[in-house]
Amino acid sequence: MRIIGIDPGYAIVGYGILDYSGGKFAVVGYGAITTNKDTPFEKRLCEIYDDFNFLLEKYKPDCLAIERLYFNTNQKTGIDVAQARGVIVMSAAKRDIEIYEYTPLQVKQAVVGYGKAVKKQVQEMTKNILHLEKVPQPDDTADALAMAICHGHSSGSLLKNLRIRQDG
Amino acid sequence: MRIIGIDPGYAIVGYGILDYSGGKFAVVGYGAITTNKDTPFEKRLCEIYDDFNFLLEKYKPDCLAIERLYFNTNQKTGIDVAQARGVIVMSAAKRDIEIYEYTPLQVKQAVVGYGKAVKKQVQEMTKNILHLEKVPQPDDTADALAMAICHGHSSGSLLKNLRIRQDG
Repeated sequence: MRIIGIDPGYAIVGYGILDYSGGKFAVVGYGAITTNKDTPFEKRLCEIYDDFNFLLEKYKPDCLAIERLYFNTNQKTGIDVAQARGVIVMSAAKRDIEIYEYTPLQVKQAVVGYGKAVKKQVQEMTKNILHLEKVPQPDDTADALAMAICHGHSSGSLLKNLRIRQDG
Repeated sequence: MRIIGIDPGYAIVGYGILDYSGGKFAVVGYGAITTNKDTPFEKRLCEIYDDFNFLLEKYKPDCLAIERLYFNTNQKTGIDVAQARGVIVMSAAKRDIEIYEYTPLQVKQAVVGYGKAVKKQVQEMTKNILHLEKVPQPDDTADALAMAICHGHSSGSLLKNLRIRQDG
């Protein structure tokens, strides 16, 4: 199963592509789509659309794991992140890629093992699980890889539960 | 100048297409893109993408007038409206259609003449300005037409101001 994890945004969209098989991850690629703050917002959405579709075409993932959004202090930023997320989710759905949403809490639990882990712990554990020499930069890229790991572990649990039920 | 006004949403996207020339509006078309609540959210975004692109292809507007979003009570709905709005704005920008944002206050001022007008007054005035027999339904469609009127009047003012400055 090939997973693309996404940390949604409009200035930086972190991405990480992992193959997950037999409980193990293989790193396929990771990085970030970036847009310039001097570019009109709607054109930034177009760049995200183009670059994300390029990634989907190149890596052909089976599923997308992406953060569920909640709004808190900065509503303006939240609205714009949501608009970019809409473009990303629509692009994946157009290609019949399965979409899974996770909260930051779920990612922490899946990657580190407990929900109160701090960001740095999640990043270090991501590095270790994927046998990387250092934590990928920017943070958005590391977060996207953590999201992909979260989906791998979650889908593994799903399959295991399914098998147990079938055996039982 | 051909304007497409949009009232963004994910269950109902109201649209209204007007030609504006010499201070007068001609109605080209109006209606609503609707999606079913039983359809997965990402597939609803795909339907909005497809239907909106169909409208752009059919009517070839010069500019898009769309509501600026603010969040208030229902954050979940707000996030999903923003995601749909991102798909709409990106689709227009891909075709180099100019995008203009207006607040509900600006629409009320442009259509009725004062910012404290209630929704029903805006709808009645929209009907009168466009010489329609009745207020278009659903409300989202009437709101989209009001948005298009707002842009027509605003662009008219812009041109007039420009002319005054040039004459002076």
